[in-house]
Amino acid sequence: MGLLVVGSIALDSIETPFDKVENALGGSSTYISLTASYFSGPIHLIGVVGKDFDEKYIKMFEEYEIDLEGLQIIPDGLTFRWGGKYHYDLNVRDTLFTDLNVFENFNPVIPDKMKKDSFVLLGNIHPSLQNHVLDQMTQPKFIVCDTMNLWINNEKDELLKVLKRVDVLIINDSEARLLTNEPNLIKAARMIREMGPEYLIIKKGEHGALLFYEDQVFSAPAYPMQDIFDPTGAGDSFAGGFTGYLHKHRDFDFENMKRAVVYGSAMASFCVEKFSTQGIEDLSTLKIHDRFLEFLELSRFEDDRKI
Amino acid sequence: MGLLVVGSIALDSIETPFDKVENALGGSSTYISLTASYFSGPIHLIGVVGKDFDEKYIKMFEEYEIDLEGLQIIPDGLTFRWGGKYHYDLNVRDTLFTDLNVFENFNPVIPDKMKKDSFVLLGNIHPSLQNHVLDQMTQPKFIVCDTMNLWINNEKDELLKVLKRVDVLIINDSEARLLTNEPNLIKAARMIREMGPEYLIIKKGEHGALLFYEDQVFSAPAYPMQDIFDPTGAGDSFAGGFTGYLHKHRDFDFENMKRAVVYGSAMASFCVEKFSTQGIEDLSTLKIHDRFLEFLELSRFEDDRKI
Repeated sequence: MGLLVVGSIALDSIETPFDKVENALGGSSTYISLTASYFSGPIHLIGVVGKDFDEKYIKMFEEYEIDLEGLQIIPDGLTFRWGGKYHYDLNVRDTLFTDLNVFENFNPVIPDKMKKDSFVLLGNIHPSLQNHVLDQMTQPKFIVCDTMNLWINNEKDELLKVLKRVDVLIINDSEARLLTNEPNLIKAARMIREMGPEYLIIKKGEHGALLFYEDQVFSAPAYPMQDIFDPTGAGDSFAGGFTGYLHKHRDFDFENMKRAVVYGSAMASFCVEKFSTQGIEDLSTLKIHDRFLEFLELSRFEDDRKI
Repeated sequence: MGLLVVGSIALDSIETPFDKVENALGGSSTYISLTASYFSGPIHLIGVVGKDFDEKYIKMFEEYEIDLEGLQIIPDGLTFRWGGKYHYDLNVRDTLFTDLNVFENFNPVIPDKMKKDSFVLLGNIHPSLQNHVLDQMTQPKFIVCDTMNLWINNEKDELLKVLKRVDVLIINDSEARLLTNEPNLIKAARMIREMGPEYLIIKKGEHGALLFYEDQVFSAPAYPMQDIFDPTGAGDSFAGGFTGYLHKHRDFDFENMKRAVVYGSAMASFCVEKFSTQGIEDLSTLKIHDRFLEFLELSRFEDDRKI
């Protein structure tokens, strides 16, 4: 059974203090599909691009054995374009432009063979589209959802409908506070889990991530990065690594969920090391596992001496 | 051999959204001494108070077997007073008043028997006083230092002299950035270690703490707190727990330093659960160890399934 991935596919123009790039491959479903593909196939990508979408990107998806039957190519349209500029501390970014193009009327249609997928990863798109995707699925067993401040502010009712249907919500700390109007993340986490998702992941950027389930909390460390070249796609790469790992093992025990969070963090750490998708290309399971072990070493301590 | 603790002793008036308290026991050396006392004695407290310092606080120090030979009681002076107000998110505090009183002319004089102490914890006081304390010590083996933005901004040269002499600097993330003018904490850590301290701890409040040594990094999680009643003294309690644990075991191996960071974090988590010093009173080694185990459980994960 496949992992269904829905989200944006974009051509990104990005400026950082280190370099800049134009019309590079981007979008949430791009990062998610590529990172998830290292764990287990098939990956079923649902998205839309225009006539200008370079054939080399299609080939690249195919090299990663990403099934493109659900990719709509609009012959008289242009691909979604996003331009952003990061500042010196890389935590703040300005959106320079957003040309939705074919993404504006995106209607995710799930091919018949993919409707039975048991794993669904709803990338950060309008919650009504997320609901529309779920409506088409016949037997979803494990649904992971991303969202953003735009939908929390403007489409909260629709978003709350999505949250009732998903197993995992992945969100960052400021979004968690915005969604609940509660500054304390532990309290905010409880409130969000009451909205529907059994598992909640709160990403904290350079401070790692928290996983919440029942009365358990897991704190994953952040990879110590001296040089972050391009933060674009880090959150999507996290979601792809997390869900890809679970898609491979089909084990939702808390111990395995912890590992999935660390694999997600590992994929995000690769992502930001290079521009666009370059950081998550040409990896290997060995390299990914080595990064996992670095996370382990970073946070491991033992209780082998009494106080 | 004792652990020498130098810092302020204060009467704090604190307002939080939950409650308020007036003239409660506070000050950096108070929190440090109390938390360190759970690990190993003797604790040698160096500080100054006025005639108004309540006898019950003296008795309390004595109950914790804190040696007060280095406590100066100025008969015609008043104890240092500080008033602060915390806001709803508890990360921001306003200083309402600072009456230095006898602390203004504090001249730390180390009693002869304490000059041979091998462990020294320099609480957050003027760096020239920190240097003056070190000048009096005959064979310090392990020196831990705290500081704050005030000294980084106004007394940087003197502070840099202190840093050349200490083994461990404990600092928070904004102070680390201020000291180095470098937003990336990993880079900032390298720069600070080049200023002198072999070990560096960067505290990140609700995001835990980082320990740096040579090319190693340890990321300690933060205790998930739903209710922080009073953040006052958390940093000092961290320093007291950290140094107290090392004072007991005299082992500076990185594995043991990691445990010390977690014991420091544990003591800080107790501190903020109640007003003033109440959270760090009447603890037991069993209770402290249980909290340590909670930190272990919070961050532990295993590599028992390949990707």
